[in-house]
Amino acid sequence: MTERHIVIMAGGAGTRFWPASRARFPKQFLTIGGDRSMLRATVDRVVERHSIDRVWVVTGQHHAEHAAKMLPELPQDNLLVEPAARNTAPCIAWATEVIAQRSPDARVAVLPADHHIGDPQAFLTALDAAFDAAAEHIVLFGIVPDRPETGYGYIQRGTRSGGTDARPVHEVTRFVEKPDLPTAQQYLEAGDYLWNGGMFVYAVGVMTREIDALMPELGAGIRACVHDGKLDEVYPTLPSISIDYGVMERSSSTRVIPTRFDWSDVGSWDAAMDIYPRDEAGNVIRGDAEVVDVRNSYVQSDGRRLVAVVGLEDVIVVDTPDAVLVVRRGQSQSVKKVVEALRKKGRQDLL
Amino acid sequence: MTERHIVIMAGGAGTRFWPASRARFPKQFLTIGGDRSMLRATVDRVVERHSIDRVWVVTGQHHAEHAAKMLPELPQDNLLVEPAARNTAPCIAWATEVIAQRSPDARVAVLPADHHIGDPQAFLTALDAAFDAAAEHIVLFGIVPDRPETGYGYIQRGTRSGGTDARPVHEVTRFVEKPDLPTAQQYLEAGDYLWNGGMFVYAVGVMTREIDALMPELGAGIRACVHDGKLDEVYPTLPSISIDYGVMERSSSTRVIPTRFDWSDVGSWDAAMDIYPRDEAGNVIRGDAEVVDVRNSYVQSDGRRLVAVVGLEDVIVVDTPDAVLVVRRGQSQSVKKVVEALRKKGRQDLL
Repeated sequence: MTERHIVIMAGGAGTRFWPASRARFPKQFLTIGGDRSMLRATVDRVVERHSIDRVWVVTGQHHAEHAAKMLPELPQDNLLVEPAARNTAPCIAWATEVIAQRSPDARVAVLPADHHIGDPQAFLTALDAAFDAAAEHIVLFGIVPDRPETGYGYIQRGTRSGGTDARPVHEVTRFVEKPDLPTAQQYLEAGDYLWNGGMFVYAVGVMTREIDALMPELGAGIRACVHDGKLDEVYPTLPSISIDYGVMERSSSTRVIPTRFDWSDVGSWDAAMDIYPRDEAGNVIRGDAEVVDVRNSYVQSDGRRLVAVVGLEDVIVVDTPDAVLVVRRGQSQSVKKVVEALRKKGRQDLL
Repeated sequence: MTERHIVIMAGGAGTRFWPASRARFPKQFLTIGGDRSMLRATVDRVVERHSIDRVWVVTGQHHAEHAAKMLPELPQDNLLVEPAARNTAPCIAWATEVIAQRSPDARVAVLPADHHIGDPQAFLTALDAAFDAAAEHIVLFGIVPDRPETGYGYIQRGTRSGGTDARPVHEVTRFVEKPDLPTAQQYLEAGDYLWNGGMFVYAVGVMTREIDALMPELGAGIRACVHDGKLDEVYPTLPSISIDYGVMERSSSTRVIPTRFDWSDVGSWDAAMDIYPRDEAGNVIRGDAEVVDVRNSYVQSDGRRLVAVVGLEDVIVVDTPDAVLVVRRGQSQSVKKVVEALRKKGRQDLL
């Protein structure tokens, strides 16, 4: 059996979980939806079936120390620290080349470090199936939607091209951006649209071939990084482009494997609230809080201060040592406006 | 001219301004509606026309040190520190007896330390008129209402009994408790109902006579406190009763002087919000805050942390070093429920 490697992308520096997330402490380091950081939970999920020696974590310079501390068992060489953030295509090309050096016929699963998976066993079973199917193709996870979600991109599946009857693999008809609600409703009813979970599996030779064909400059650059020892020099000059735009949407080697498990990319405080069980008033209360006449709300304290909420519904309150956020449910996408305003004002202390 | 003395009652230990107010730091020490504490502002208002030697501040043991620091120019003897909290009747009887010792024909104005007065000159003019009218009566300020307020008690004025044409003094027909809204509307339309501002002026002989007639036990007790040096022993045994119940509502010596000035007893965060000017979005923002799509809201930070509010209207957010409150406008009376819950849980650190 070919070696199976896991690449966990932990390079995010998102602002959507401000004030809990900061430039130096992004979402993947937060405890959302469980009792561990999302990065820690992502590693824990896969090491149940995959050796930690074959787990790779890619992260940025500002986050490397924190990631290493959080993952003491991860071999030092398996922590890939980007000299500069260049989006996902260079990141994946680099990890692929590093793994290919060690094991030229390895297969690789790329997983974001900041997604929530509520059913780890179902996920691992799907991951096995994707590894099995990834001999000649880049196999994407397509999560079967259970609602007309407007927050995700979709993959329209085509005819079946392989896999097993229990776990068929389909051609990809097209990728579509986050839809509006009527369109999402149509997708749900059509039945052949799947959420693009941003997780995929491939053989290193296939990914290398596709990158060389579609982004030859990137392929050459990555080889200079890995084989000529020019990482610090060349990596920052690589094209900053996502793997979706750079490869997935332009390659004919993509396939999609429909999967059903409890998954969320947890893209906002609203999404975070949705992955917790509610109490009888519909609230999610984390940490030291006192609520009176409050319904359908999310209240989070980091334990150092008390958060009291009175007479409100559909609010999200997040308390941290130097900032507190109060936002109406459904509007947590606008949290980035606060971050932008703080940046304009030079409030680096709060970013 | 008889001496004019001012007694400022600073004994409150209210919980309605939690988390800004605490047992050891009650409302009169807070900065509400101005740039100084309410106690400091109350003193500053009167010393414009009255010597600080004739200003008296009554407060509790836990608050004496703080009050003394806040009022360094107040003669030490003029800070009356209650051995125990016994409500307003003993407090006023005591201050009256102390002043009578020094100046038996003095007149005394009693003023709460935690009210907001937006027009100090109009207030001082009304105060002069009340002093003038207080030879034989206890003269209460009756604020002419401009709205059907349900948060105040009312005084129904009777026939004119004195004063000047510009500043008539009326008999008191009756005192009424806080009304419901239809009743408050009737009061407003009737025209002879005035808000009971809890401020009044009297000659010491009149108040002493009324207390001896209506609460003889209190009168005797206070004389033991002041003349026999038994303050610590006797004061805690005095009847704990308000001056309203003990004297005002039972005395035939009360009069009311209708006054018009910008006044609020600031009984809640909602009332506090009402005394500030609004910005163009209808918000009151105090301290370090960032608001996005927020209207008709009150946001207060003590400057040590940032408060960010997004996509809400009609909320009140108050941030302090160890607790943050988020309450819907119109519901700030329920803040006391939070305080009760904390008390039940033994959270003395937050009370």
